[in-house]
Amino acid sequence: MQLGLSVSDSDVSSFTPLVVLELADDTKAEAITWLLNRIRDKQQNGGAELLVNQLLFPAQDDQKPNPNVFVVGSTLQRLLNGAEDVGLFKEFQDGTMRGFTYANRESFKDFNGDGEGFLSDAECQYIIKHELDTLRAKNEEHVPGYPKLKLYPGKSVVRRLQSKGVLIQYFPLHNKEDLKRLSFSWYKKFKLSLQPLDDIRHYFGEGLALYFGFLEYFTFALVPMALIGIPYYLFDWEDYDKYVLFAVFNLVWSTVFLEVWKRCSATLAYGWGTLSRKKAFEEPRAGFHGALGFNPVTGREEPVYPSSKRQLRIYLVSVPFVLLCLYLSFYVMMVYFDMEFWAINIYNENPDIATSILLFVPSIIYAVVIEIMNLLYRFAAEFLTDWENHRLESSFQNHLVLKVLVFNFVNCFASLFYIAFVMQDMVLLRQSLATLLITSQILNQVMEAFLPYWLQRRRNKKVHKRMRRLMGDKELPLLGQVQLETEMNTYLGTFDDYLEQFLLFGYVSLFSCVYPLAAVLVVLNNITEVYSDAFKMCHVFKRPFSEPAMNIGVWQLAFETMSIIAVVTNCALIGLSPQVKAYFPESDTQLILIVVAIEHVLLAFKFILAFVIPDVPKHIQVNLAKLEFDSLEALKKRKILEATET
Amino acid sequence: MQLGLSVSDSDVSSFTPLVVLELADDTKAEAITWLLNRIRDKQQNGGAELLVNQLLFPAQDDQKPNPNVFVVGSTLQRLLNGAEDVGLFKEFQDGTMRGFTYANRESFKDFNGDGEGFLSDAECQYIIKHELDTLRAKNEEHVPGYPKLKLYPGKSVVRRLQSKGVLIQYFPLHNKEDLKRLSFSWYKKFKLSLQPLDDIRHYFGEGLALYFGFLEYFTFALVPMALIGIPYYLFDWEDYDKYVLFAVFNLVWSTVFLEVWKRCSATLAYGWGTLSRKKAFEEPRAGFHGALGFNPVTGREEPVYPSSKRQLRIYLVSVPFVLLCLYLSFYVMMVYFDMEFWAINIYNENPDIATSILLFVPSIIYAVVIEIMNLLYRFAAEFLTDWENHRLESSFQNHLVLKVLVFNFVNCFASLFYIAFVMQDMVLLRQSLATLLITSQILNQVMEAFLPYWLQRRRNKKVHKRMRRLMGDKELPLLGQVQLETEMNTYLGTFDDYLEQFLLFGYVSLFSCVYPLAAVLVVLNNITEVYSDAFKMCHVFKRPFSEPAMNIGVWQLAFETMSIIAVVTNCALIGLSPQVKAYFPESDTQLILIVVAIEHVLLAFKFILAFVIPDVPKHIQVNLAKLEFDSLEALKKRKILEATET
Repeated sequence: MQLGLSVSDSDVSSFTPLVVLELADDTKAEAITWLLNRIRDKQQNGGAELLVNQLLFPAQDDQKPNPNVFVVGSTLQRLLNGAEDVGLFKEFQDGTMRGFTYANRESFKDFNGDGEGFLSDAECQYIIKHELDTLRAKNEEHVPGYPKLKLYPGKSVVRRLQSKGVLIQYFPLHNKEDLKRLSFSWYKKFKLSLQPLDDIRHYFGEGLALYFGFLEYFTFALVPMALIGIPYYLFDWEDYDKYVLFAVFNLVWSTVFLEVWKRCSATLAYGWGTLSRKKAFEEPRAGFHGALGFNPVTGREEPVYPSSKRQLRIYLVSVPFVLLCLYLSFYVMMVYFDMEFWAINIYNENPDIATSILLFVPSIIYAVVIEIMNLLYRFAAEFLTDWENHRLESSFQNHLVLKVLVFNFVNCFASLFYIAFVMQDMVLLRQSLATLLITSQILNQVMEAFLPYWLQRRRNKKVHKRMRRLMGDKELPLLGQVQLETEMNTYLGTFDDYLEQFLLFGYVSLFSCVYPLAAVLVVLNNITEVYSDAFKMCHVFKRPFSEPAMNIGVWQLAFETMSIIAVVTNCALIGLSPQVKAYFPESDTQLILIVVAIEHVLLAFKFILAFVIPDVPKHIQVNLAKLEFDSLEALKKRKILEATET
Repeated sequence: MQLGLSVSDSDVSSFTPLVVLELADDTKAEAITWLLNRIRDKQQNGGAELLVNQLLFPAQDDQKPNPNVFVVGSTLQRLLNGAEDVGLFKEFQDGTMRGFTYANRESFKDFNGDGEGFLSDAECQYIIKHELDTLRAKNEEHVPGYPKLKLYPGKSVVRRLQSKGVLIQYFPLHNKEDLKRLSFSWYKKFKLSLQPLDDIRHYFGEGLALYFGFLEYFTFALVPMALIGIPYYLFDWEDYDKYVLFAVFNLVWSTVFLEVWKRCSATLAYGWGTLSRKKAFEEPRAGFHGALGFNPVTGREEPVYPSSKRQLRIYLVSVPFVLLCLYLSFYVMMVYFDMEFWAINIYNENPDIATSILLFVPSIIYAVVIEIMNLLYRFAAEFLTDWENHRLESSFQNHLVLKVLVFNFVNCFASLFYIAFVMQDMVLLRQSLATLLITSQILNQVMEAFLPYWLQRRRNKKVHKRMRRLMGDKELPLLGQVQLETEMNTYLGTFDDYLEQFLLFGYVSLFSCVYPLAAVLVVLNNITEVYSDAFKMCHVFKRPFSEPAMNIGVWQLAFETMSIIAVVTNCALIGLSPQVKAYFPESDTQLILIVVAIEHVLLAFKFILAFVIPDVPKHIQVNLAKLEFDSLEALKKRKILEATET
């Protein structure tokens, strides 16, 4: 709670500012007054009981600053109550993680005095976000001054303002001191140590920390494969037959990898107190719209959109659109193969250095086109899923992930499958895989890190210059910080980061047996990825609200599906290898039957393994059972007490 | 609660007897006094606060009756409190199912006056069982009079007495009037209506009612298959090629069947209030033993058995034993094939009626041997699993089910798979399937219903005669009923019933395409099964304690595994059919590849289907969400109230 700027800014705001609210600069005064009153009002009266102050930027010669920027803070007492509302888990005296209650606050570890420093910044900001999000309309029929901004009892005020563009954005402020410390331990020193996951979680929340945990785990898991891959690559490079052993290794690896991750993830989430945390009741998305009706669950008035209409939109528009895109992707693939043959023909006619370089050109062009198509499709998918008008954010996310995954999978891997199983040309497969992988990694790093970094630098310089021009030597760190961060890009969540890892996992688990260097490339990519992602989180993007997460969610399923496909693919690759074929000189039939039989056994084994290995390590299971037992016992005792009292 | 015998027995017991406790006839008097005191003692003092009376049977000339038979009952108030303890769900005023609490009792439907008739017999007996089971030792070091029967604080008294043979049995009493009504509506009238599942649940509890619900559902689901099967059988009997269509039907059927069942089961369980009921904390099994230690969850003293020792027993003894049994089963199969060839040879040498009958003899003998092996193995598996010393009943059951299922599956189906895919002899497959199915059905009906019925009749007659000889015209219905029911067989749970249905499901879903009458046979079998099972529950066995169940548990998984195997098998059968082979005259390779590809697509589709179809119907999901929302709101209100009070 000790923000580095609270002392020198005592003239600007009398409390520690945690969250910035930016309203449109033409917002009507009565709406602002109403909103601020609702935010400041007591909880009993349905307010959020938070502290809020306006920030006035000095006028500038070239452009008028937005006058409607506010900072929100809170009293300690309110934050502690809020922690109970959102169901925060904190470390108890006995080392277990328990749901925080204000009544038992003294029994929690690290709770000293009035509780100063008990909640981390990110937690405070999360609580404030929750309180703002659940600030509900009472009897107002519309937002004051905006007759068209209809309200109904129970509607989240902030979401309505946001969906209509009155509230431009709200975001948590960075804490410069903490950020400095975090970025030093994270990426500034050259070190062989692991990432400071606990610090990341402390500053950015569990969702992001789990992503970095997964990134780290994935990279480490690839190291054995990379180590095996290098000698393979060096000594058997031209011996295409010898990939059987490597395929078997891939098979086992891709299965064990995910099973072990589930346990690691559970361990992390338990330590962070999100494993047994109950999901809050989900609010409708900000963009959800429909005729006013009654929610069958809460009985409250809220927009209702018939699910049959949504189904129609999904099946009559979205599905055909996705299929069309897939067709397009296949068409582009065929064009690529035409280019490939054309290049090979030129090379065969006149084999010299220039034409041998030409051999790689089609693959590189294709890789770039794939990335562009993925990017375009991503926007289209987001637009379509939004248009499907899902009521809940989780349902929106699931539909978006499904759309994007299917297309990305086909777009990235179709050509490889075609080369491997239709053309059965392992040389071309290797070359194609290498080009795809390297090109897409380079593109990704540029798009993801360097480009935003460069843009941000330019912007920073401009803002700094402007501020200096205005104030001379006087420093107003809060005003400067807010103005800087307001203009930073918004981090859109871990979606794209996981997607990239998903595709890399695909390249490695599906086809790395024919190109053993793939694992090495992915390891190298991920090491720089850690640094560039860390840097972009700390300096390129606005600080995101922390997001409690108990696992990597739908991505676990996506990776598991990929690992099943990997089993099938690797078995098929083994069946195709000349080495194995040599054992069945007479009949292909027998070979195929045996490969299919082995594949079935492996798949069955995989399912049994997933079933037998507990997803949560034993000692955490015991701790969770203990918590449950304790709460049951407490309930029983209370009942007996109540019974004897009456 | 109105037991038919409460009036005329006012001289025997002053309350409605619900449960019978039978102690060994040489039990020491001080142990009995101690036990009765503990049962009668107030809850505050750690007693069960139940009513208990001794039943004294008149001495008989030929044998001394057991003097240590007790009946247990309870006051209404105690039962209502107990209903809250066990977490019973009852119908609320608004038609939803809610956890019963004594404080809110008036808001529950059917709660009138003091609550007489609110709880069903079965519920009362379940509550009494729970209270007896959770009657715990306080500071006693051993059972009085038995220095070797060690106790420790928190040990369940009843389980200790039971595991050492002092408590022979305890069981709920039948309610003659209800039973009469139930058996009339269930199986005594000839009707086309469905089974009275709600009444069955009312009398026997949810576990058994779900079994009968499943039996009914399975039988109905087989009717379309039977209807298609009859013309197939009649007109295409000799045309072995035409089974492709039927195999495709099987494929779809076996997948849809289980998905729909999940929803039916959820609907039933919701209506019975077991769907959202929380599992109680599981006690160690009665037979579990080990050195005294501390439970890591509860912190209480209790026997601890290192899981490494258990693992050793499982992997060094149980697994080899199961493998040995499987080997034996294969050996027997080979002997059967020898017999089969021998019979065929005789028939070929001298084809007349006698030798054509001889053709069926090996199959019949093999079917009988299979049944005997299954039976013997069942005992061995139970012994072994008991010896593995599992702490929890659920873990015991899982290991037992796994052992039994693997063996039964191999034992019953290995010969069919061998004939289908190694010998590829569809005529023999059909003949073998028919013989196996018919023989095992006949054996089952005899073993399951007629034999116990006949034994029970003989016993009943003896007891009746004895009672009449003793009392002349004086009738003591309670004494007579208790004596009769004490000697009835104990119903060992739904295990064997589900196992039988599992094997029938296997015969139908795996191979019925080559023998379309299989479905017809199973339908016929299941119709008689309903009647014989109903009869045996009502008149052959002791009444079992009701057992709350929210689904068919591990059997759902077993059936789903079978349906996956069914997809693979049916695809393979289709690939083997001459009809399909005709399309690929030149190359087997292409045919196999196409069949394998289709199989993979089908399996993927099956998983997607299982994922997409919600397990719980929408309207029940809404109801459950509503309940959860209500309880969250209530909690919030209480917190705000508490906050304003302080």
